[in-house]
Amino acid sequence: MTDNTILIKNAFILNQDFEYKKQSLLIKNDLISEISDEIDESNVDKIIDGEGKILLPGFVNTHTHLSMTLFRGLADDLSLDSWLNDHIWPMEANLNGDYCYIGALLGAVELIKSGTTTFSDMYFYMEDVARAVDEAGIRAVLSYGMIDFGDAEKRENEIKENLSLFENCNGIANGRIKVFFGPHSPYTASEELLVKVRQLADEYNMGIHIHVSETQKEINDISAEKGLRPFEYLDKIGFLGPDVVAAHSVWLSDREIEIIKKNNVKVSHNPCSNMKLASGIAPVSKLIENDICVSIGTDGASSNNNLDLIEELKTASLLQKVDTLDPKVLNSDEAIAMGTIKGAEALGLDDEIGSIEVGKKADIILIDTNSANMTPDSTNLSSNIIYSANGSNVDTTICDGKILMENKKLVALDEQEIYDKARQAIKELKEAI
Amino acid sequence: MTDNTILIKNAFILNQDFEYKKQSLLIKNDLISEISDEIDESNVDKIIDGEGKILLPGFVNTHTHLSMTLFRGLADDLSLDSWLNDHIWPMEANLNGDYCYIGALLGAVELIKSGTTTFSDMYFYMEDVARAVDEAGIRAVLSYGMIDFGDAEKRENEIKENLSLFENCNGIANGRIKVFFGPHSPYTASEELLVKVRQLADEYNMGIHIHVSETQKEINDISAEKGLRPFEYLDKIGFLGPDVVAAHSVWLSDREIEIIKKNNVKVSHNPCSNMKLASGIAPVSKLIENDICVSIGTDGASSNNNLDLIEELKTASLLQKVDTLDPKVLNSDEAIAMGTIKGAEALGLDDEIGSIEVGKKADIILIDTNSANMTPDSTNLSSNIIYSANGSNVDTTICDGKILMENKKLVALDEQEIYDKARQAIKELKEAI
Repeated sequence: MTDNTILIKNAFILNQDFEYKKQSLLIKNDLISEISDEIDESNVDKIIDGEGKILLPGFVNTHTHLSMTLFRGLADDLSLDSWLNDHIWPMEANLNGDYCYIGALLGAVELIKSGTTTFSDMYFYMEDVARAVDEAGIRAVLSYGMIDFGDAEKRENEIKENLSLFENCNGIANGRIKVFFGPHSPYTASEELLVKVRQLADEYNMGIHIHVSETQKEINDISAEKGLRPFEYLDKIGFLGPDVVAAHSVWLSDREIEIIKKNNVKVSHNPCSNMKLASGIAPVSKLIENDICVSIGTDGASSNNNLDLIEELKTASLLQKVDTLDPKVLNSDEAIAMGTIKGAEALGLDDEIGSIEVGKKADIILIDTNSANMTPDSTNLSSNIIYSANGSNVDTTICDGKILMENKKLVALDEQEIYDKARQAIKELKEAI
Repeated sequence: MTDNTILIKNAFILNQDFEYKKQSLLIKNDLISEISDEIDESNVDKIIDGEGKILLPGFVNTHTHLSMTLFRGLADDLSLDSWLNDHIWPMEANLNGDYCYIGALLGAVELIKSGTTTFSDMYFYMEDVARAVDEAGIRAVLSYGMIDFGDAEKRENEIKENLSLFENCNGIANGRIKVFFGPHSPYTASEELLVKVRQLADEYNMGIHIHVSETQKEINDISAEKGLRPFEYLDKIGFLGPDVVAAHSVWLSDREIEIIKKNNVKVSHNPCSNMKLASGIAPVSKLIENDICVSIGTDGASSNNNLDLIEELKTASLLQKVDTLDPKVLNSDEAIAMGTIKGAEALGLDDEIGSIEVGKKADIILIDTNSANMTPDSTNLSSNIIYSANGSNVDTTICDGKILMENKKLVALDEQEIYDKARQAIKELKEAI
C-alpha cells in the first residue's frame, strides 16, 4: 500500500512553546511526518494552501453528552434539578439506539464544523454513539453513564454494560475510539459501585469519567449523607487517581483542591453549562496555579446550547478574569492549552494528540483569519482565536489524517440528511411523551 | 418615482409579544408596509425566501468605538488602566480621519455580517465615521468623545467639535445618522463640561452618551474627589435625564439604582468588555426588576474582541444567571429585547426601529436555522438564537429597506479591499510608535 500524503503550505503553525511560525506541514497517512520552512511538493497527493490561516491541533472537548444534541433548546432558564427531573429525564425514558445515533451524528457535524476532533462522552446506547463516531471520522473517548442508586442488581447490569462497551468498541475505528468507565456521579452511583469501578479501572487499564461537585445542592446532600464533601468522600474510598476526569468541579474547598492535586485528578471545566444552569463558578485560575490539569468541555448541547469550543474557551477566560477581578488570569495561550494539550492529557492521549509535533496523529484544524471578526490579524494569534473568533472561523478539519471538512464544507457526511433525521427524531420523542 | 418593494416569504417573524409566527412581510422603500399570512407577489421587485429562517429586527448595539476595530487584539489580558495608558492611548495619538474611516468601515462589515443594523458610537474623527456609516448603509448614533480634564480652553474646543458634528451630520444619510453629545466620563469631563452639555442637550434636543461607573477605581476616585458616588454626583449637578445612555454602570449602590430609575437614565450593559478587563459584573437583573431600560453594547473590538451581539447577549444572560445563582433571570426573550427594542428606546429611536411593525423602518435580519448549531429548531426560537447561535448564523441583513447582505454575502461593500486597507492602517500605526 502506498502512503497517502497531504501537504499544508505556509500556515501559521502553533508549536509547543505557543509560538506561531509560518511553515509547512506534511501528513503521511494518519501522522504528522514533517514540519519545516519548505517541503517538497512532488509526489504529494493533496496540497492545501495555508496562507493567512492558523494551524492548530484539533480541539479536545472533555465533557459531552453528544446524543443530547437532539435536546438542544428543549428546556431553558431552569435550575439543574427541574431541568433534569421535569424535562430531560422524561425525554430520555423514550430514547433508543437509533435516536442516540442520529443525535451523536448531529453533534459530530457541529464538532467538525467548529474544529473539535476529539470528545469525551458519557451517555447511554454508547455503541450507537460509537457507530456515529466511526462514520463521522472523529476521535472519541466513550463511557457508559452508570447509575445504580444503591441497587445491587442494577449495579451489576450497569457494570456489565460498560464492560461490554469496552470489549466491543475499545480501539475500533483505526484506534480512534477508546472506552472509559462512566460512573455518573457520587450522588447517583453508590459507594459499592465507585469502589468496584476503581478496581476494574486498574484491572482493565481504563480511565474514568465522572461528574463531581456541580451544584451546591450536591455538596449539601453528600455532606449530609457522608459527613464529607464530595472529593473528600471520593478520596476516602480510594476512588481518585490520575485516570479520573472530574467534570464540573465547581464547588471546591481548599482541602479538596489539595486532594485533587495529590491524586493528580483531571478537571473538565464546563463554564457555559455552569453559568446557564446557575450552578456556580469553578475556581479554575486557582486550580491552574496549583498545577492541576484543567481541560474544557461544553457539556451537552441541551445545557449550553452549542458545542463551540472557541466560545467555551472565551467564556472560561472572561469568567475567571471577572470572578477574580484580575484581567491577567487565564490568558489566551493558557486557554488554547486548555482546549488542546490539557484535554489530551486528561484523556491519557497526550502521546498521540493535543499538539502539532512530528509523530503525533494528524488531528489538525485551520482557522481562516481573513474574515471580518479576525481582521486585522492580531500580533497575538492566540488572542485572535480565543477573544475574536468563534467556531465558524474554522475552515478545515482533519482527523487521523483524513480531511473531514475543507473550505467549511463537510467532505463525507451529508449535513442536510442528518439535520432532517434529527428533526424527525425529536418530533417523535416529543410526541411519545 | 416608483416604489421599491421587497417581499420576504414564510419566515418566522418575531412580533411585539415575543411570539414567532410564520408569515410574510413586505418592504416598501425604507418601511415595513405589510405583515400577513399571504402577500400578493405580483409587481414585487424582489422576493426573498424566508423558509426555515427567523426574521428579527436588526440588532441595536448601544455602546461602541467602531474605529477601534483597528486595535483588535492589540493588547489583552491587562487592567483597564494599563490597557488604556500603555497601549491604546499611545496608538490613538497617531490616529487621523482616514484611519478612523477605515476602522469604522471594517467594524461596519462585522456589524452587518453579524446582524447589527444600528450602533451608538463615541470616538474622534466622527465625521469620518459618518462617512463610513453612509457608505455601509447602516444606522448610527454618533457622538464625539469630549475630554477636558478641567481645562477651560479644551472644554470650549470639545463642545465646538461635538456641535459641529451635529450641524454637519445630524439627519444625513436619509436620516440614518443622528448625533448625540459624548462627554467621555465623570472622571475625564469636568463638572463645568457636564453642566454645559446638559444645557446644550436640552437646547438642541440631543441625547447624551457617557461612560459611568465602569471600575471600582473610578468609584473610589470620584468618591474621594466629590464625596459622592458617580451617579449621586451626576444627579446632584442635574446632568441626568431620560436622554442619557450610561455605558457600563457596573458598580451601583441601591441609592444609585434609585437615581437611575428616578431620572429614567438608560443603561448600556457591556458584559464581555467588563469581564475581559475584569471591571466587574453589572447588576443587570436588579436593574430590569426595577423597570430600568437596559440595552446591550459590545464596547470597542479592542476590549471584547468582536462585535457579535448574539455572543454578547448570551454572555449577558449566562453571567446574570451565575452571578445571582438563579437560572431563571435574563431569559432568552428578555435578551432578545435587550438587543432590539430596549436599544431603540435607549437611543430615542423606538418609534422608528427595534421591532417588526408596519410603519417602522425596514431594519430586518434573517437568521438561518438550517445549520449544525441551530438544529433541531427549538420550540423556543428566542432560545435557539440566544443560547445556540452566533453572529455567523445571520443570513440576510436589511437596513432602511436596502439589502446589505444576502445569503451571507455583502451586497455593496468590497470586503477584501476593506480588510487589506485595515491591515495596512494598523501596520502604519504600529510603525509610527
